Amino acid sequence: MTAPADSHSPTALHPFDESVHLSPAGEHRWLGHTHAAYANMVGPFGGTTAAVLLQAALQHPQRLGDPVAHTVNYAAPVADGAFEVKAVPMRTNRSTQHWNLLMTQNGDVVASGSAVFALRRPTWAEAEVTPPELPSPDAIERFSSEGRPPWVRSYDMRFRPGQSPMTFDGVEQGDSVTEGWVRDEPPRPLDFASLTAICDSFFPRVMIRRRRYGPIGTITMSNCFHADAAALAEQGSAHVLGVARVLRYHAGFFDQRAEVWSARGQLLASSQQLVYFKD
Amino acid sequence: MTAPADSHSPTALHPFDESVHLSPAGEHRWLGHTHAAYANMVGPFGGTTAAVLLQAALQHPQRLGDPVAHTVNYAAPVADGAFEVKAVPMRTNRSTQHWNLLMTQNGDVVASGSAVFALRRPTWAEAEVTPPELPSPDAIERFSSEGRPPWVRSYDMRFRPGQSPMTFDGVEQGDSVTEGWVRDEPPRPLDFASLTAICDSFFPRVMIRRRRYGPIGTITMSNCFHADAAALAEQGSAHVLGVARVLRYHAGFFDQRAEVWSARGQLLASSQQLVYFKD
Repeated sequence: MTAPADSHSPTALHPFDESVHLSPAGEHRWLGHTHAAYANMVGPFGGTTAAVLLQAALQHPQRLGDPVAHTVNYAAPVADGAFEVKAVPMRTNRSTQHWNLLMTQNGDVVASGSAVFALRRPTWAEAEVTPPELPSPDAIERFSSEGRPPWVRSYDMRFRPGQSPMTFDGVEQGDSVTEGWVRDEPPRPLDFASLTAICDSFFPRVMIRRRRYGPIGTITMSNCFHADAAALAEQGSAHVLGVARVLRYHAGFFDQRAEVWSARGQLLASSQQLVYFKD
Repeated sequence: MTAPADSHSPTALHPFDESVHLSPAGEHRWLGHTHAAYANMVGPFGGTTAAVLLQAALQHPQRLGDPVAHTVNYAAPVADGAFEVKAVPMRTNRSTQHWNLLMTQNGDVVASGSAVFALRRPTWAEAEVTPPELPSPDAIERFSSEGRPPWVRSYDMRFRPGQSPMTFDGVEQGDSVTEGWVRDEPPRPLDFASLTAICDSFFPRVMIRRRRYGPIGTITMSNCFHADAAALAEQGSAHVLGVARVLRYHAGFFDQRAEVWSARGQLLASSQQLVYFKD
């Protein structure tokens, strides 16, 4: 495939669709390319790397059902450019399917992971947590992407008034919690790939907590999906509500937990990631 | 190897060490065997399956540092008996190492997973959560393992007074939270393998919430480790404090989150799992 263009005609794919576009390259194999709209400070935004790995299973001819869990391990910096993805169904049961996922560049492993897909069916249902109450997205100013890496401009983020994540004045906060609306920019109907990327769209908590810039890198992210086809259809391209926090920062790593809620307050995904930080 | 014995001389290995014992079987390969002391209602306790997968990386000659993250996907019921484990270092960097993990029986995949190991070093450190306050373990009666599967008898569990998990009177509770002390029985110094198993020792939340028995199965579990060698040494064989809850039950699956705290209140592990339930 050729590299995606940086500008789009009205009939062009959404940049996110371009970023997760995979061309068949043999059994269980696909080729893709990083996208300028989802560039991070170095290499691509990790959310698109995660989404690409899931996308390979989503578009695999042997796919069963929908994803219910997904883990991605970031093994090395992904370089801007082409990559190969391998998605192998390791075991397919009557109602669940287990995937092994791998991303390589020039033969070197840069990311690996796994996913579980399942055929869901109605059961007793309940929630034990509720989303925070926030003003509606149109009542909150959009987070400025000025001076941020390109991927931030590919999201419309609106944080709880009073929260100012990524303000680097060095005045340490009491916690790293943020609550905010987020959607693709330009708007795009939510699907499993974009929900995966949104699970990684929460800024690194250590920078929010300490209000200072520092080197970080997500090591691993695991997402559980409650979203199903009906929930995604109902959500459409509206903002989802994201909440993120840390449990502990210790000896070079912190664990970041997040929840993503639908516009009408249904939990779509719960996420846990471990992040490296330097000092 | 031969199957572990069911009884032990004073000089015998702890049953947990027997349960995670792996004999070399070629490059990246080991052979193990399920253990009667960690049997579940059908097949082995999933905590030992997870621990065995991590153990393969822990004892691999190419191991770098200590585990910081681990994911296990339960692809199929593990049968009582022998299994093969494969642990492949997919990428080894200067301070991190990424593992692909696989368990098979008669050539069929029964569990898969991944782990990240790392060389840790001192950094700024902080916690944003605190453990619940509980009476000390010796002030709480031990949870009765009567009528429970064998693996429950291999743990000493002491829940917050008033909590009675796995009481099946059908009177639904308002939530599924439990807080309790847990340690290996007989006592055994905590290590990464046993900490992994303890992360899966929290009873299925849907049974606690609904106070009724039902078919369940953990689909995937992801653990982040804050424990390092110093924390494990300090903990020794004392009880750890575990807290578990659910965010949402929906269409056949619920997400269960847990934290494991040291005896002196340091977070040792944060855990997230997705569990299948039937009705």
